[in-house]
Amino acid sequence: MKAHKDLDHFFAPASVAVVGATPNKAKGGYSIIANMLESFGGPVYPVNPGRTEINGEKCYASLRDLQGKVELAVVFVPASQVPGVLEDGAAAGIKAAVIESGGFAETGEEGRELQDRCLRIAREGGMRLWGPNCTGLVNTDPLIFTPFIRFPDLRTRLQRGNLGIIAQSGMMAAGFMMQYLLTGFFKVSKACAIGNKMDVDEVEVLAYLADDPNTEAVVAYLESIGDGRAFVEVARRMAGAKPLVVLKGGRYEESARAALSHTASIAGSDEVIEGALRQAGVLRVHDFQDLMDLGKAFSLNPRPFGAASAEGNRIAVVTVSGGGGVVASDLARDNGLSIPPLREETLEKLRRVFPPWMAPGNPVDIWPAIEQNGFDAFSGSIEAVLADPGIDGIVLLTFASRIIGAFPFEELGEKMRRAGKPMVSWVFGDARFFDTYRDSMESIGAPVYTTVRSCVKALAAYLHFGRWSRLEAGEPVSG
Amino acid sequence: MKAHKDLDHFFAPASVAVVGATPNKAKGGYSIIANMLESFGGPVYPVNPGRTEINGEKCYASLRDLQGKVELAVVFVPASQVPGVLEDGAAAGIKAAVIESGGFAETGEEGRELQDRCLRIAREGGMRLWGPNCTGLVNTDPLIFTPFIRFPDLRTRLQRGNLGIIAQSGMMAAGFMMQYLLTGFFKVSKACAIGNKMDVDEVEVLAYLADDPNTEAVVAYLESIGDGRAFVEVARRMAGAKPLVVLKGGRYEESARAALSHTASIAGSDEVIEGALRQAGVLRVHDFQDLMDLGKAFSLNPRPFGAASAEGNRIAVVTVSGGGGVVASDLARDNGLSIPPLREETLEKLRRVFPPWMAPGNPVDIWPAIEQNGFDAFSGSIEAVLADPGIDGIVLLTFASRIIGAFPFEELGEKMRRAGKPMVSWVFGDARFFDTYRDSMESIGAPVYTTVRSCVKALAAYLHFGRWSRLEAGEPVSG
Repeated sequence: MKAHKDLDHFFAPASVAVVGATPNKAKGGYSIIANMLESFGGPVYPVNPGRTEINGEKCYASLRDLQGKVELAVVFVPASQVPGVLEDGAAAGIKAAVIESGGFAETGEEGRELQDRCLRIAREGGMRLWGPNCTGLVNTDPLIFTPFIRFPDLRTRLQRGNLGIIAQSGMMAAGFMMQYLLTGFFKVSKACAIGNKMDVDEVEVLAYLADDPNTEAVVAYLESIGDGRAFVEVARRMAGAKPLVVLKGGRYEESARAALSHTASIAGSDEVIEGALRQAGVLRVHDFQDLMDLGKAFSLNPRPFGAASAEGNRIAVVTVSGGGGVVASDLARDNGLSIPPLREETLEKLRRVFPPWMAPGNPVDIWPAIEQNGFDAFSGSIEAVLADPGIDGIVLLTFASRIIGAFPFEELGEKMRRAGKPMVSWVFGDARFFDTYRDSMESIGAPVYTTVRSCVKALAAYLHFGRWSRLEAGEPVSG
Repeated sequence: MKAHKDLDHFFAPASVAVVGATPNKAKGGYSIIANMLESFGGPVYPVNPGRTEINGEKCYASLRDLQGKVELAVVFVPASQVPGVLEDGAAAGIKAAVIESGGFAETGEEGRELQDRCLRIAREGGMRLWGPNCTGLVNTDPLIFTPFIRFPDLRTRLQRGNLGIIAQSGMMAAGFMMQYLLTGFFKVSKACAIGNKMDVDEVEVLAYLADDPNTEAVVAYLESIGDGRAFVEVARRMAGAKPLVVLKGGRYEESARAALSHTASIAGSDEVIEGALRQAGVLRVHDFQDLMDLGKAFSLNPRPFGAASAEGNRIAVVTVSGGGGVVASDLARDNGLSIPPLREETLEKLRRVFPPWMAPGNPVDIWPAIEQNGFDAFSGSIEAVLADPGIDGIVLLTFASRIIGAFPFEELGEKMRRAGKPMVSWVFGDARFFDTYRDSMESIGAPVYTTVRSCVKALAAYLHFGRWSRLEAGEPVSG
């Protein structure tokens, strides 16, 4: 494995040059330099032979004019000019370059040769290369943001977070970035768009994130895994300690062929990949939304929950809708979860808040109890279920309405913390109150989703990670 | 099968009484009378022995005071009072009653006896009963809205639509209603929450919707199917003509047991149900979101698309992200779709807008072409693929950004109409532009989703319905 400490040159450089910087706001080179000047903590040098000044900053003709001053170069010029830029960089003593330009191996033989030339120059000059054909990287601490997409007010908008993101495709990486920047869907430590990965690859980045104290969980969208053995080695090291979720496309022959043409990857046999990921405790998903949903779940709760039952997959469904409870139970079973009967002492507690005609069970249909006893019945029922020694986690189905603000969220959070069990929630009903509910629930560590499926998948992921953590600790896990 | 024409008494009564009407805004009886007074076209009579006036309207002590004046009674009083109300109604000559109150068969033996008593009174008095334990029904033409949830400005907000909804669980029906009322997710013709269905049941309602000219597609959430043979008979009648999507919970033994306790249903064996639904061409889904997603798809396009290929399941993925194309292809394969190579004449057209280094294929990765030729390349590529005689439909993956407004939506719509092929779209990227993109695309008949999975499922549903329509027409379908 490569010395991934080199990656500090990318994630925490002392100084940065932007080659291809321009004052033309329609160009990516403008976005990069404008973002950098606004957000980067150290010196930022625009480089463009056709300009003398950009956004009030002196512009340099070449990296050679910045001898010894630059640690990292961000390069966004036509592919044919990149080798020259790298020669300049090597001569100027830069340590690393993020090449965002396209037009390399993904465009055929000529581009592949160009890529090889870049790599030779870098190796001879002692430089590490990131990309090409990508949006580069983001670090939220210390702040660096290389993508060629303009984000004003990065310093205030880019909040520190604990989730590491790896995305091979630049467009997808940009999509992720938009999501978390604009919606606060999750908070990121580092986001890495690795593109053609001619030098720095998914294994090295993953190893870096595995050791990064700011990164507590990782989601990765990969189109290919170059060195499967090395990848699994890092994944195994993370198993049970730092959650890792992977979306790897190309599961069928025809889609694998499509992956091959894109980002110039060689796709391995999916059966091998599937087996390797499973043995390394990696959670595999098949849609971008699933990757983001689990990113949110693990960003909220990166550390494993202790399992109550020996099997570690036994859940309760607490629901305001009997029908919702049935559908959630089906989906839970689809996802390898079990919905066991509750213990007698739990049922006894539930009977106290349930109407006499209603026998409590699992799913716990709490609507009649709420109708009779108000929100006290709601939180009382959840408390009883959380205390059940045979239950590992809870799916909560809630109807959002005007009265949701009166719900005792903090009290519930305290009960969850004491029980040490995960809870996830589906919300439906009056969409005007979804945000209030979601913000309140997520502030107490319970992620909220708007499909039952995502909700159940998130709980299954928590419990999967919990079981791996017990396995790694040498504790027995049955079932 | 019962004479479902009786249901006109519910969906289009000449006059309505609300029994349990109250001026107390915290009560459901207020919501019902307030909604009715604002929205119903004919006379509305509040009934409550404890009041003389409600919202400025004279209040009657009993249905007996309204001899011959009332066609439909909406009843929301404690369960024990319902038989008396029905006796009054029978004496006053009412034709039908929606009983929204809970406390019947779902609460045990005593409630079941109460329910039987109600049924006897109704049969003797020549009345039809809807419910109990439900929110009743909605018709958008003529307008009637019985749920005990307050919706001000119903007359303007409740738009006419073409989608019929059946939901056994009241809470879920309410959730659906919120969705469509507040977000315009889809437009409804009739929404039916059938609750304990002691008289009017899912079969009769489905038969009514099957014959209703305002209803062009139906989505149903069912917890039980009482008379499977009759249900399948109606479904078979709809097959290939009016799309029918069903969510039927209780697929496992433990969840089926839970369904049994809720709404007092007897759940049949899921294997039998699965087989029967499949043979009747019904689309079955497993999550509420899927039901709503397909409701939107069929509300936009209720009539079958003609298939181009013999198999009728061959699609193209047109994408701005190579990686997105790979993931969409995987999910398409998961859903029984095929992603065949494009015809030579199609590839030739694509080559004209693609950069020389890029060989077009399926998925059609159009980003490099857009970079080179702008949005013309985008719509040109879609046009070429729509014209391919081996392609039945398109999944379009788009990145939303500021420039999306410049996209030639109407031109695209014209091309889709001419080709007679379905297109569905996933949108990602800058969420601030999702609404613009969705509204524009859906105005030309292409539903937009924010997960690739829903997008692929919607296209699979269109093509499934198309194949059934050809089968029903006696045309051959291979594969």
